[in-house]
Order: sequence, then structure tokens, then C-alpha cells
Amino acid sequence: MYNFRTDLALERRDLYRKAHNIQEEIDGIEAEEESLGEQKEEQINISRVKVTNENGEKAINKPIGNYITIDIKNFKNISQDGIQKTSEIVTNELKKLIQNQIADLDPILVVGLGNIYVTPDALGPKVINEIDITRHLLQYMPEVLEEGTREISAISPGVLGTTGIETLEILKGIVENTKPKLLIVIDALASRSIERISSSIQLADTGIVPGAGVDNTRKEISKNTLGIPVIAIGIPTVVDAATIAADSLTLLIQEVQNNGESNNFLNKLQEEDKYNLIKEVLSPEEYNFIVTPKEIDGLIEKMKDVIARGINFAVN
Amino acid sequence: MYNFRTDLALERRDLYRKAHNIQEEIDGIEAEEESLGEQKEEQINISRVKVTNENGEKAINKPIGNYITIDIKNFKNISQDGIQKTSEIVTNELKKLIQNQIADLDPILVVGLGNIYVTPDALGPKVINEIDITRHLLQYMPEVLEEGTREISAISPGVLGTTGIETLEILKGIVENTKPKLLIVIDALASRSIERISSSIQLADTGIVPGAGVDNTRKEISKNTLGIPVIAIGIPTVVDAATIAADSLTLLIQEVQNNGESNNFLNKLQEEDKYNLIKEVLSPEEYNFIVTPKEIDGLIEKMKDVIARGINFAVN
Amino acid sequence: MYNFRTDLALERRDLYRKAHNIQEEIDGIEAEEESLGEQKEEQINISRVKVTNENGEKAINKPIGNYITIDIKNFKNISQDGIQKTSEIVTNELKKLIQNQIADLDPILVVGLGNIYVTPDALGPKVINEIDITRHLLQYMPEVLEEGTREISAISPGVLGTTGIETLEILKGIVENTKPKLLIVIDALASRSIERISSSIQLADTGIVPGAGVDNTRKEISKNTLGIPVIAIGIPTVVDAATIAADSLTLLIQEVQNNGESNNFLNKLQEEDKYNLIKEVLSPEEYNFIVTPKEIDGLIEKMKDVIARGINFAVN
Amino acid sequence: MYNFRTDLALERRDLYRKAHNIQEEIDGIEAEEESLGEQKEEQINISRVKVTNENGEKAINKPIGNYITIDIKNFKNISQDGIQKTSEIVTNELKKLIQNQIADLDPILVVGLGNIYVTPDALGPKVINEIDITRHLLQYMPEVLEEGTREISAISPGVLGTTGIETLEILKGIVENTKPKLLIVIDALASRSIERISSSIQLADTGIVPGAGVDNTRKEISKNTLGIPVIAIGIPTVVDAATIAADSLTLLIQEVQNNGESNNFLNKLQEEDKYNLIKEVLSPEEYNFIVTPKEIDGLIEKMKDVIARGINFAVN
Repeated sequence: MYNFRTDLALERRDLYRKAHNIQEEIDGIEAEEESLGEQKEEQINISRVKVTNENGEKAINKPIGNYITIDIKNFKNISQDGIQKTSEIVTNELKKLIQNQIADLDPILVVGLGNIYVTPDALGPKVINEIDITRHLLQYMPEVLEEGTREISAISPGVLGTTGIETLEILKGIVENTKPKLLIVIDALASRSIERISSSIQLADTGIVPGAGVDNTRKEISKNTLGIPVIAIGIPTVVDAATIAADSLTLLIQEVQNNGESNNFLNKLQEEDKYNLIKEVLSPEEYNFIVTPKEIDGLIEKMKDVIARGINFAVN
Repeated sequence: MYNFRTDLALERRDLYRKAHNIQEEIDGIEAEEESLGEQKEEQINISRVKVTNENGEKAINKPIGNYITIDIKNFKNISQDGIQKTSEIVTNELKKLIQNQIADLDPILVVGLGNIYVTPDALGPKVINEIDITRHLLQYMPEVLEEGTREISAISPGVLGTTGIETLEILKGIVENTKPKLLIVIDALASRSIERISSSIQLADTGIVPGAGVDNTRKEISKNTLGIPVIAIGIPTVVDAATIAADSLTLLIQEVQNNGESNNFLNKLQEEDKYNLIKEVLSPEEYNFIVTPKEIDGLIEKMKDVIARGINFAVN
Repeated sequence: MYNFRTDLALERRDLYRKAHNIQEEIDGIEAEEESLGEQKEEQINISRVKVTNENGEKAINKPIGNYITIDIKNFKNISQDGIQKTSEIVTNELKKLIQNQIADLDPILVVGLGNIYVTPDALGPKVINEIDITRHLLQYMPEVLEEGTREISAISPGVLGTTGIETLEILKGIVENTKPKLLIVIDALASRSIERISSSIQLADTGIVPGAGVDNTRKEISKNTLGIPVIAIGIPTVVDAATIAADSLTLLIQEVQNNGESNNFLNKLQEEDKYNLIKEVLSPEEYNFIVTPKEIDGLIEKMKDVIARGINFAVN
Repeated sequence: MYNFRTDLALERRDLYRKAHNIQEEIDGIEAEEESLGEQKEEQINISRVKVTNENGEKAINKPIGNYITIDIKNFKNISQDGIQKTSEIVTNELKKLIQNQIADLDPILVVGLGNIYVTPDALGPKVINEIDITRHLLQYMPEVLEEGTREISAISPGVLGTTGIETLEILKGIVENTKPKLLIVIDALASRSIERISSSIQLADTGIVPGAGVDNTRKEISKNTLGIPVIAIGIPTVVDAATIAADSLTLLIQEVQNNGESNNFLNKLQEEDKYNLIKEVLSPEEYNFIVTPKEIDGLIEKMKDVIARGINFAVN
């Protein structure tokens, strides 16, 4: 199967159409776009991709469900106002997804995946630190809360590499013991495009189902495995270094062909996955090399504010 | 009951003896001291307090079991060599406690309590990041490990205030799903003496049983609640601000009495807990004020190295 | 001279009046108060203390000039809106102080004192990281800036303990080479009251003149030493542990006397500084013990936003 | 001139020889290698490249002087022992460079370039925090130091992007005011090879002279500009994303040619710089994209220990 090297449904749909030279929409996929904000500076685009049947599922290797991508232009220089506006869009979209699944006061567990000690992977744990939790107050001092406060709890389970425990195993125990009705999972994603790094947000009501992202070995975190609906909030924070290399090669091949210099060898290359060829460039296999903006530390801080506020106002 | 305002068994025993004017050992308590290192600079003292019966239990409000306190002199200026030596002492003591409880290859889960975002409370999570875990390797790629590698996993469950979930609830689920035979729990403690802040280590084979420490509301993490033995590694990182105030008052009263100026009012104060009197000084109740060395960030980094190496060599 | 153990002019004036039983204002001091915000939750008080002559100077050991203290109620739970409102107050007050000293486009150097690796001392360096600097753009690519942009540069010179160089020596060289017309210096202060920790802001047009604060050995940073006006923005982030102890003793003595149990010894103590008595409590002299809220890490993050935005809008 | 896209003299010499098909040594360059450590695990290689005349200077665009590169194998998994051993090698090499330039007790200023808030750029400031400084003690309390202690001071001047001030301008003032006889400057470099990221160390006695590294606009920090000798310690922490792309293209072209499928267009491409071609891949120009190991945060911590200990023992 095609290696998309992206976790974004929107990018996968675009890649699939391009690869198969499809002009119309893929059967089993519905898509629409919306553009907010007149100011060019802080324009925000919302794309809604819906996978409606098995054919769509197979095409982009993402389960049936809704995938909403929020793209923020020039996020690097976003103002406090822009952060606020973006978080309100997250709140609106998230609220709709939650209301489709559970009742108004049903308890929610927010899960921040990732490793706090690895900058581009620290978003999830950082968001958790800002979530307004209420579960302990409802238990021990309900008098300080307003009537009709939803029960919110939050956890950063760490990553397999530092715990030795599958995230799913940790979450299973917590779900059994604390009985939330819905999970919101924040996760750092791989994107195909470096333009999207820490400036796009994907909301999905299908949970986290490992596909062709950076880390294929993770176990599914979804209704299938946990028994309750799982909303995933994914933010691209890295591009695989091999993606950059492979994309460069594709460009070169196109250039060669545009110049009418095509030859059999290049045509053959075109069809293969170029990964093998570029392994030599990216040899030190014990490392996991990533492409990231130099400013990633600051971008993660801002995105944390957007996501945390987005969730805090959506769940209350 | 007496408010010890310390989690260290050693300090409680001393306070109890002083308060009751006991010269000999308390019935139900055994204690011994050992001094290592000739260099005055990096002298290390080991105190072993054993609670042997219910009377001892009541006296210091600590369950029957072993409490080993390692005091490092001048930890602030400790060298790399000193860190190494201290970690070896932790390894030795910890190894004995582990061997008393489980077999050589029985799996162990290491738990780092505390909040990574609050400096004096971040020790537990920081240690977890340095633990050599093997559980996932034993499952997915055992060929990279030597024969006879123990299964080690590790987790930072966060704190009630940021998760909304009791630590015990989180650990119960993980213990059920991953089936370790023993828990090692790292925890930041309150001490009575500012000399001990981040320069003492208490090992206990009784788990964590909330007593008169800073945070009385926590649920017990022990064999009683989890069904497997729990070894606690506690490091004092704060002194309650009220302790400093109360100790100052005690000193004043003694001074007054030593000067033969005693009066009834002071005598009465002596017997009461002075907490009410000093509430006015420490009024802003929504804050949790602590006394800590200005250098606490650096001390926590060094102590993390001691504890992580101490554990890594004890469990393998 | 009296050891105020606070850097806030407002607290010194109050302590002086109390100590000398003065009801009216001190000769050489003028003071006024203003209260903003109706919502009890986020009420902000502004106090303006003006030292007008040498007598005032001597009384509170602060040079002639203006000292504006902004107190924010319940800063711990402040909302994004509250942070914005507070920063606007800082902008207003700071703008007036700047306009009194220099012309509209005169260059300004912002200096963040403190040690980034010591949490309660990290405010200055953290603010510097958020200042909108323009000096390099004016030099290398003025076309990206609007007409009439002021030249702003910023520096974190570190602390004597990690550089071995007096801050004044570092700043002298930079002022000579880059020729700003005014300095804004951000500094963490000691306060007398734990209520003020990270919830008060003092603006002063007199620079930083070491008095009875935590660190007496620092050299003056002011017009006297640098030749250009220096505006200081100070935020209390710690209380000296000895202050808590001494205040507890004072309370006890008052209590004793209120109960008609006064005696000569206590009367004498009342007049002396109790520091000697409490040295025993606070013995480990190699450490610098401080009292701070457990939540100091989070408070510093919020205060950083207030101060950085306050400055960014005041200078442009 | 050739764009080396590396700051390492060793890599430049290799690239130059390859590009010009030179088998013997370049005129004006001398080079030798040394291999330490038998254990494959922690093998350390030392390469000494000496630029001896103007021809050598022009060939690799590095001034006349000594360039020592220390390569550590498998730095990612280095033990405490390995860190210690590597730091001793740094000490030995650094000591020789210092002794060539100044007398035994001549004062030294250690400068940590870089931005503490950008992980791959934070090495310099982090090292500064660990340097054993003595200058303030020699001034204020010489009695605590041993006879014959060298005067050491240290500074992190920040980066142009956050200060608005050229590093050279800041250093000039400090050198004038504090009068050191030698500067040791720590700097994060760009490397050509991802294998070298945070596992190589380059010592040079020529200071920092901007060449074809990531950041060409910096001003020279050297004896020419400061009047005292400058030893540079550079550690590769990033590879420019464009380097990965360009290297992929080179590989492809070679592959095509090896397959006897060479054609004119590819030959032409070979001669040009492929940068223009790959600009399309790396379009978002406002970001500075880098390739870095996912584990960079942890690598920087370990490298900090190596460099700080290396310096501390070399200067005393």
C-alpha cells in the first residue's frame, strides 16, 4: 500500500487523487472547505473530510468518520487575539463532535500523548497541564463548583519508550476505574508538508488508528479498543526527514521529464518507493531524524494555548 | 495526635523522644547509625529505624517496617564522584529491600510521584525519565537484551490537582494490566529540618502511608491497597512555612524560660500547637507556601542522578 | 538602620510609620491610592509613593523619585482577560515614566536581571525573550518596519554568581557601544508580605539602588552609574525565610503583651532585631532559604506575560 | 565559491578533495587521525586538521590555524564513564591550545553563544551555567580560594534575534571592562552529516569566522576583532534541511550514471547547485527548517556535561 507519510486525512486525500490522477472526489470521501477571517495575516481555513464508506477507507487508509482540519496562516507570528480566535474555532468544532457522542454532563477524560522531554512531542503533556479538571472537586468539595459542572479528568500516560507500557494498557485501566464516557486524545502528528508544522489542527471522531504516520507500531486507541468514543486532536509537529529527501527526488524526476529527457531508469524510479535509494543519506538508523522549524519550542507553547483553551471551553 | 510535620521516620522518632523526654529507645523502635566516607566534604550517614510493634507504630505514626535514611553532607557542592558514590549506597540498600520481597527476575514497576511543572515536586517524574526500562523490549525485541534481564516499567501518574484522579486509582489499573510483582515509588517529602532539603533520602519497605506530611489527603499506596509490596524512596524537598514559624516560636519560649522569665501564658502556649497563632502570618490560604533553598532547581537535577542510577543498578 | 527586608517603597513606608507610630504622612513622602475594577475577582490597586526630599529618602532608604505599586488580587487564578487588563495598566504607567525622561523615538534597552535556572529569579530573563526588539531590523532591514519605529534592544546579563562579572560592568560596556537613551530593568524583588509574591509590580524611575533587599551587595544601576535614566520594574517573588520567622516572633510578643503577661525580657526583645535568636532555626548558612508559593513556576509564567506585553505596548 | 554547508574544517577538507578528485593532501592543509578506546561501544576518534597557508585557507574557506575534531561513537547511549572519558580528552586538547596562547594564571572569559529557548541552539548557554567561575570570588572573598586560582568569568550574550545587538558588540564592552587575556567560545554548528549531530566536537584556535555555516551574517569573533586570542568549541547540532534534499539529489544522479543512463540534463544538474531546484520543497521561507534527531533534548544535556567538565579541568 501507498506510504502516505502523513497522518492528516486531508493530505492523504490530496495525495491519493494526485497519484491516481482523479479530478472528481474519491468514491467514499466527501470534502468541503471554509475560509474564515478577512485579514490575510491571520486567515484560518477549515477543511472537512468525511470518509463515508469502505472504498474511502481503503483509499486513504483512515476509518469511516469525520476529519476536520483547521489551518492557521502565519501561526508563527500569531497575536494573542489570533490565539483566542483560533481556540474559539477549536471549541466550536470540538463541541459539535462531543455533542454527537455523549450527553451534556457525561464525564470526559482528556489524554495528552507524547514525551514532555522531547520538544516536538511535548504538546500533549503540556496541554494536560492547562486543562481545567473538576473530577476531584466533584468528589471532595463539590460546593466550590457551579451546579451542572461536567466531570473532567486528564492524564499524560507517557510514551512506550520511557514507560515500557503500551499507552492502550495504561488507558484501559484508567477507563475501567474512573468510567469516563468519552476520551479526547491530543497527539503530535507527522505531516507531509513542512508548511503545516505546528500550524494545522486535525480533529477526528475516529480515535487514533495507526496508519502510515511516523510511528506505526502503536496500538489503536478508539471505541474498538476502549469501548467509549475517542475524539483525536492531532497537530503536525514534524516531517520525517526521509519525506524531504523523497520529495526532492520526485521534483528532480519531474524536472527531467519536463525537459523531455525522460528515460527508462527514471520512469522505473518513479514507480518505486524511493526510500531505499535515500537510506544511504539517512544512515544512522539508531536515530529518528526529523525536520522541524528552528522555532519549534515557541510554536509548541502557542499551540498549547490554542488547544487547551479550545478544550476548556468545549467541555464546559 | 502530635503533628510531626515531617515524613521522615528518623525525625519523628527524635521529635517523639524529645517531646516525651525519653532517653532510651522507644518501645517498638530499633535504631542504628553508620557513617561512611572519611573526607569531611562528602560524608554520608546511614540511619536505620525499624518499627517492630504497634507501640512503635503509634509513637511515630508509621507502620511496622524498615526506614533507612541516607544523609549526604554538603550535597549542594557534591562532585560527580560523590554523586556516583551516593548512588551506589542507594543501590546497596535498595537491593537488600528488593531481595527481601521478590525473586531475581520478578518484574518491577517504578513510579515517580509529583508534578513536573512544580520544581520541588518534579523529582519523581524526572527520575522516571532516566530509568532503564526493558518491558517493551522484552515484548517486542528480546534479542537486543542479555539473557536474564528483569522486566522494568516506569510511570509518572501526575498529581490529583492536575489529573483529577487519585494516584491509587491510576496505579491499580496499571498493576492489574501489567502485573508487576513489586513497586518502587519515588516521592518528594516534607522534612522538619531545612538542613535535610534535597540532601537526605529515605528508603522504606512499607509503601506510602499518609501521615503528618504536607499532603494528608492522599490515599495509601502499599501492599494493603495494591496487593504487591511497595518500596518508597522519599526525598525531602520542602519544609512547610508554618514549621519555620512554629520552630521560631518554640525557640523564643525556651529562651524566655531559660532567662527565668517564664509565665503562665508562655507555659500554656508551650503545650498547645502554635499553628493558630501563626495563621495570621501565613494568611493567604489559597497558596501553599513552602520554604526551599534558592538553589532547589540545581539540587533536584543532582538528586535525580543519584536516585535514577541508584535504582538502575539495584534492579538489574 | 532598620532592616526592612523588603524592596517595595510602599511596604517600607508602612513599616516606618508603624515602627514610629506615625499617623499622618512622613515628611518627604507623598502617597495616594487608586482602585480599579469592580469585579471583586480581579480587582487591581495602584499605589503611588513619591519620595520628595532627603528626609523621605532617609526614612525609607529609597532615593528621591516615583514608586508605583500595582497589586493584583487573586493573580493565581487570573484569566487571559485579566492578564491583558493588567498589562494595559503597566503600559499606561510605564508610558508616563518614559515620556518624562526621553523623546518619542529615543532608543531603549530592556534589561532582564536574574538567573534563568532558578525559578523565582527567572522572571527577568523570561520577559526578555518576549520583548519585540527592533534594533537589528532598523540596522539590517529597515524596510520591514513601519516609519517611526523606536529602536529597542534587550539583554539578560545573568547574575554575578554564574558570570563572575558585576551586572553594572556588563551593562556599562553595552550602553557605551549601543548608546540607548533609557534603560528599563526587570528584577525579582524580596517582599515583606507573602501575599505580594508574584502578585505585585513596582515601577520606579530611580533605577535599582540596593537597600535592605535580599541581595545587598549588588552595585547600583541608575543614572548615577550609567549616565542615562533607568526605570525599574520589580516583582516580589520571594520572602526571606528569616522574615517569616521574625514576623512570627513579633506576633507572639504582641499576643503575650495583649494578655497582660508582658515582662522585661520580652520588652527588650521587642526593641532588638530578633535575627540572632532565629539564626538557630535557619542555620545551614551555605543555603539561601526562601519562602515561595508551591505554584511559583506557573505564577512566573503569567507574570512574564503581563510584564512583556506591558513593556511592548509602552515603548512603541 | 563552493557552499560547504558545514562548519567543520574536517568535512570541508573531505568535500573539497572529493569535489576536485584530489587523492593526496591539499596544499596548505595538514591532517592526521588518532583513534582512542578499544571498546567498540565508546570509541573516540581525534582528527587534527591544520591550515598552514593561504592556499589551504582558500580551499576550505577557514583561516590559518588548528582544527581538532573529536568524534564520539554512539554518543546517544554513552555511559557516565564515557562522558567522563570524553571530557578528559576535551580537557587535554583544550589545555594545549590555551598554553600555546597565554600564561598559567591569565584570566579567561568563557562565552556561550546561542538561544536557551531553542533546543538545538541551547548548548552554549547551558554550558555557561556549569562553568566554575572564580572572578567574583577573587574580587570579594579570595580567602575561600586556593593560592594560584585562575580568574574565570562566563557569559551568555544571547542571539541577535532576541537582543537586537551583535554578539561582537556585547563582547567588546565586556572584554574592555573585565580585561580577560583569552576567550573560549562555545557554539552550536551546522554539520554536513547527520551522523555528527551532537556527537562531534571541533576545537579551533582561530575564533569564530563566519563561513558557509547556517548563519552567514554573524560578525567574526576573533583576535582580529577583539584583540585577544579566541578558542572556539563548536558542536554540530543541526543539519540544514536543504542539505538533506541536495544530498538526495546527488545520490540519485550518481545512481542514474552508475546505471549507464547518464544524459546531458543530469550532467548539467551535477555542475549546478541544486538549491534552486529544491527551493520548492522547502518553500515556507519565514521558517528556518532544520534536521535534528528526535532525541536532541537529551543529547544536548549529555554534551553539556562533556563540554563543561572539559573546560573546568582545562582552565584550572
